[in-house]
Amino acid sequence: MNEEQAFHAVRQSLKKRRFEHTERVVEEAAKLAQRFHVNVEKVRLAAILHDYAKYRPIEEMRRTIKEKGLRTDLLLYGDEILHAFVGAYYVQQELKVNDEDVLTAIKYHTTGRAKMTQVEKVVFLADYIEPGRTFEAVNEVRDWAEKDLDMACFLTLRNTIDFLVKKEIPIYPDTFNAYNDYCLNIKRRK
Amino acid sequence: MNEEQAFHAVRQSLKKRRFEHTERVVEEAAKLAQRFHVNVEKVRLAAILHDYAKYRPIEEMRRTIKEKGLRTDLLLYGDEILHAFVGAYYVQQELKVNDEDVLTAIKYHTTGRAKMTQVEKVVFLADYIEPGRTFEAVNEVRDWAEKDLDMACFLTLRNTIDFLVKKEIPIYPDTFNAYNDYCLNIKRRK
Repeated sequence: MNEEQAFHAVRQSLKKRRFEHTERVVEEAAKLAQRFHVNVEKVRLAAILHDYAKYRPIEEMRRTIKEKGLRTDLLLYGDEILHAFVGAYYVQQELKVNDEDVLTAIKYHTTGRAKMTQVEKVVFLADYIEPGRTFEAVNEVRDWAEKDLDMACFLTLRNTIDFLVKKEIPIYPDTFNAYNDYCLNIKRRK
Repeated sequence: MNEEQAFHAVRQSLKKRRFEHTERVVEEAAKLAQRFHVNVEKVRLAAILHDYAKYRPIEEMRRTIKEKGLRTDLLLYGDEILHAFVGAYYVQQELKVNDEDVLTAIKYHTTGRAKMTQVEKVVFLADYIEPGRTFEAVNEVRDWAEKDLDMACFLTLRNTIDFLVKKEIPIYPDTFNAYNDYCLNIKRRK
């Protein structure tokens, strides 16, 4: 699937505001990929498709998880994370994208996970720092994204957990594990 | 082991300030136990002994974990949690306390865990809200501790995670699991 086809697919399925967010994520991700020497083509395709399932009905996504044997613990952690995991599945099934790097970058773009690939890190981070994000905490992450991909991902995870506990929302274990993993490694690196 | 013997043992091993903290935890825990109909005798003994290992040399505790086959993942998450897990071990070995309810309350008093027993909850909470604790976030927890043991434990976990991520400290998985477990249950209860 080339970029034009991918853009066409998401333009159909996303609201205008969400499509504009996607365009900004693609641009941000491409910049990061160049900066940190990550495969730009894969990063761009994953970024274009990262929110492919964003507007699927929640019930449909929950059914897909159960029927297709995706990780059922997903159902416990709030609907916000479903579109990422189910999105990767739909992208593979419906758009016939089979590149594992692209698929896992879509799958983990919201939760992160321990030991993310470089493509995953770039999409995860780009989604968080694209210029449309205006909350206060993003600025420190943007500064780190200029020079240290891992540190920027770590701070994204830290901020995400901070945001979720303040709202008393359960946190998907992959996010905790990713935070701890970075935390331990980054501490060692200091 | 009766209370007098337990107090004698910790008076030997704790600095004055820490001993006074222990006395306040015992008093707070006894109040909570009465309020929520939890075994006061077990709660008091666990509270007296909860910081038994607080001043053991870190290296000794780390060695004990390795040599005695305690959970070695403890070694990854900062020294602050060691005294609780190793403390339970020492209390059993050295003071010959074998009451499982007392031992697990000592063991999980810092990290918490999913599905805490009632005795564990009371000691965990008392340690957090005893009157010597003066940080801002404790007040909301104290209010809830007047009426809802689970909600108060949940908020303690939430605050603990918030504190740790702000300091960029790795978080022991039991604490995450406990937070998620409460979060999901308390959400359902609302």
